[in-house]
Amino acid sequence: MPLTFNLSQKINDIIALQNTTAAEEKMPRSLYEPIEYILQMGGKRIRPTLCLLAGELFGNPTPNLKDGTSLALALEYFHNFSLVHDDVMDAAPLRRGQPTMHHKYGLNTAILSGDMMLIEAYQYLGKVTPKYLPACLGLFNETTAKVCEGQQYDMDFEEKDDILLADYVQMIEGKTAILLAASLQMGAIVNDASAADQKAIYEFGRHIGIAFQLLDDILDVYGDTVKVGKQKAGDILQNKKTALSVMAFEKAEGEVLEALKYWFNPASEVLDNQAKITAVMAIYEKLKVKDLASQKMAVYHQKAFDFLGQIKVDDSRKKPLVDYVEALSQRIY
Amino acid sequence: MPLTFNLSQKINDIIALQNTTAAEEKMPRSLYEPIEYILQMGGKRIRPTLCLLAGELFGNPTPNLKDGTSLALALEYFHNFSLVHDDVMDAAPLRRGQPTMHHKYGLNTAILSGDMMLIEAYQYLGKVTPKYLPACLGLFNETTAKVCEGQQYDMDFEEKDDILLADYVQMIEGKTAILLAASLQMGAIVNDASAADQKAIYEFGRHIGIAFQLLDDILDVYGDTVKVGKQKAGDILQNKKTALSVMAFEKAEGEVLEALKYWFNPASEVLDNQAKITAVMAIYEKLKVKDLASQKMAVYHQKAFDFLGQIKVDDSRKKPLVDYVEALSQRIY
Repeated sequence: MPLTFNLSQKINDIIALQNTTAAEEKMPRSLYEPIEYILQMGGKRIRPTLCLLAGELFGNPTPNLKDGTSLALALEYFHNFSLVHDDVMDAAPLRRGQPTMHHKYGLNTAILSGDMMLIEAYQYLGKVTPKYLPACLGLFNETTAKVCEGQQYDMDFEEKDDILLADYVQMIEGKTAILLAASLQMGAIVNDASAADQKAIYEFGRHIGIAFQLLDDILDVYGDTVKVGKQKAGDILQNKKTALSVMAFEKAEGEVLEALKYWFNPASEVLDNQAKITAVMAIYEKLKVKDLASQKMAVYHQKAFDFLGQIKVDDSRKKPLVDYVEALSQRIY
Repeated sequence: MPLTFNLSQKINDIIALQNTTAAEEKMPRSLYEPIEYILQMGGKRIRPTLCLLAGELFGNPTPNLKDGTSLALALEYFHNFSLVHDDVMDAAPLRRGQPTMHHKYGLNTAILSGDMMLIEAYQYLGKVTPKYLPACLGLFNETTAKVCEGQQYDMDFEEKDDILLADYVQMIEGKTAILLAASLQMGAIVNDASAADQKAIYEFGRHIGIAFQLLDDILDVYGDTVKVGKQKAGDILQNKKTALSVMAFEKAEGEVLEALKYWFNPASEVLDNQAKITAVMAIYEKLKVKDLASQKMAVYHQKAFDFLGQIKVDDSRKKPLVDYVEALSQRIY
């Protein structure tokens, strides 16, 4: 996929350039250096890539790269801000195999440099051409608020055993899916897409985002550890709410429910991680939650592509976006 | 001062109304209730009042109250966001005599509900009429970034004994003065003030803001405890950098410097608070730092009013703003 590879490379170049400028000028270093540390960790740059791909979809004959770049940076700074603060709240020591900001620089830095990244996101947004600014700012504000609400639901759910799949889907929609949706719509806004096309690309992103998270949940347990790049069944070991665990709790009864409660209770003294994984996977097998989650994912995936089909643009122009999303779905990118 | 009293009351009414609406609609409560707790604590509402007073100054024949109100709320939400996160960083248990957010609801809530308040500030800003939006967002972004930088300098300075008064003034300028300046300028922007008048009202706010902080520093040690409403010489007991302590370190030599270092060293085991206050005040007396700080304050105060004098508006229209600022300076409001 040369196109999307180039986009991702382009985004890395832009971020590196911002940081180089920052290293020369932005003071105090104690505030800005931790931000550069986080941004240089990399990541897949999915949100800026989606924003620029929406520009390629709607920008006829050429995309509005100036505004697209400002929005791409705003999205990536916001996403990284949310990771920094989430890592504090989750007490996570590592992110992408490297120390998290609070682990490396301390709590106060993670709070304040995190805040600064959120403000920098709005600074990039402020560079958008005035005629597009109200729509972009409105959508961004609505989205960032829902991301915070999603994170709060996620934390609230940790304490509970009776989360329904519908609640879980609503939580991941806020916490992750709508930022992908907004990334696409903002790319559409600054390339003069019609209101109907904006709505369709947003819904494409929202549905594909939910499908991605369901896939994440499945791959954590059933994926190829090397390909996924994470600890096998880390979600089970950390008692995390996932589509699988939520559906299992929803379906389980009697002894099976008691067993689930035991394994997912942080107070249970589990000495053998492998035994825990094996036991929980046996319950998942019994309740067929993998199949159910896969079916659910397929439905969201299909709905996403139904929305993409509604967009009044020649199919050939949709291909780069389709290729990128399919590559992400197959984790070959 | 009926006018400013009404403004402050009006702002409290607006905030209460927001919160009432929020109480009915905004979910999850675990995210929004702590925000309402903080906003209902009160405070003097200085920033929104300044914004609306600038509207009365430039809004001829009538001020633009619709945009003024959105900006007033954005400013108050931002200010309270910064208090919540600063209180975490300073490990402060109390604010306005009540438990701080992290003390009452825990660290994670203080981080996330704090973030949400910053986003809500931008949501209010997003309601500003499109033609004023780019200017307001640009100024707000520039200001919020400098407030974060100021907070970082403040934390960095804590570790140092060799801060010059000029560094200290630059820090308080960022941390507190320019938000007052921006509050005034934003009120001016949405009431079509000329570029020259906008610049002058900003500089008025910046200078008066620095004067206010110098006054705070002086009153902490020399003020009437009842009037000031804080622990007598709390800054000395907490080893805080103030105009007085910074100037004292700058001027002290030999034994006096050693004594200062001893008293301001957190590692020194000070058993008698009154003895510490008496000793430090004796050093301040010897080095005449109170007089120097007062002179400095008077210079900033005078410069502020020179800028106000440049504004091309009839003096009678300036009176409400002048009355309000003088009342704040005398702490009778």
